Amino acid sequence: MKLYDLQASGNCYKVRLFASLANIELELVPVDFLHGEHKRPPLSELNPLGQLPILVDGQYVYRDSQAILVYLAGAYGGLAWWPAHPQGQAEIVQWLSFAANEINHSLCTARLVQKFGYALDKEAALAKAPAVLALLDQHLEGNEWLAMGRPTIADCAVYPYVVLAPEGGVDLTPYRHVARWMERIEQLPGWQAVDAVMPESA
Amino acid sequence: MKLYDLQASGNCYKVRLFASLANIELELVPVDFLHGEHKRPPLSELNPLGQLPILVDGQYVYRDSQAILVYLAGAYGGLAWWPAHPQGQAEIVQWLSFAANEINHSLCTARLVQKFGYALDKEAALAKAPAVLALLDQHLEGNEWLAMGRPTIADCAVYPYVVLAPEGGVDLTPYRHVARWMERIEQLPGWQAVDAVMPESA
Repeated sequence: MKLYDLQASGNCYKVRLFASLANIELELVPVDFLHGEHKRPPLSELNPLGQLPILVDGQYVYRDSQAILVYLAGAYGGLAWWPAHPQGQAEIVQWLSFAANEINHSLCTARLVQKFGYALDKEAALAKAPAVLALLDQHLEGNEWLAMGRPTIADCAVYPYVVLAPEGGVDLTPYRHVARWMERIEQLPGWQAVDAVMPESA
Repeated sequence: MKLYDLQASGNCYKVRLFASLANIELELVPVDFLHGEHKRPPLSELNPLGQLPILVDGQYVYRDSQAILVYLAGAYGGLAWWPAHPQGQAEIVQWLSFAANEINHSLCTARLVQKFGYALDKEAALAKAPAVLALLDQHLEGNEWLAMGRPTIADCAVYPYVVLAPEGGVDLTPYRHVARWMERIEQLPGWQAVDAVMPESA
């Protein structure tokens, strides 16, 4: 099973982190992002959006980090990470959308500008960040995990761009419940930091 | 089962449309959006993001139109709309993320500015629209539906802001495969237009 990967990408880190936590073996295929390998065939045929990560498992090809988390958890990760009942799935999908929308257009965008020089609106992204983090902090004041009272793919979808937020100029110190939640994630068996690489026999 | 609803919202329409297609009865609760009812308790306690729609089914409360589609389909809609296998779920979640991210920050944002006067960047939103629609058109050239070769909640998540795109100044005429897909959706039993209201015995 191949993950077309960019080490510095928080979206790719979502997948690497979950695979490591759930002990799912991935073959990481580094993509030459700087030279636009992801924008050209064959990768642009695997994902017409021209984005990473891309997961290839035999005949199955998935783009979008949230969709890849659902696939990996459903196919290999077990019900603890992605349950079979609609109540739990919907509780988790709320946070997958939060990752794809609110987190992406605040913490992630600010980092893309500050760290990688993207021509995006950093001020607008930074202006959204406090509300996004305050909401997360409020939720985590009364909950140890984002959904279902236990670690799920919701945490794997949201944590990467939160832990990377200081690279976009966002100060995380006001959000103490977020800080404790990050510590809990970092104590999970199999947790790996963003700059770690998947071991060959994960 | 209550849906806190705003008639003009494409996100609320996603849920009303799916409920009508799947013959799921919803009690629509109109929200006084202009006076900010969704930003105050009790609604802001049901959804701290201060957004609509919100679904309340007994003890269960869900925000986010994508999550609500997953819940309704999983709990009441049957496997045709949201399958139990991870391959189909991931295929659909790709499009739920596309709705929450790409569609939201192009077609939806342009409409919020043009129709409702929101202080958002309409030019940036309109600049993204052609790539979003071209990708959709390319996918629909070879596929009758977004996922699994049949109507699913993926179509219900993406269709509303596409059909509403002209209200944001977006011209849909170049996208003929998108046009045929919209016609297919509009021929489904139970389809209802955005301005229709849920009948009392849906």
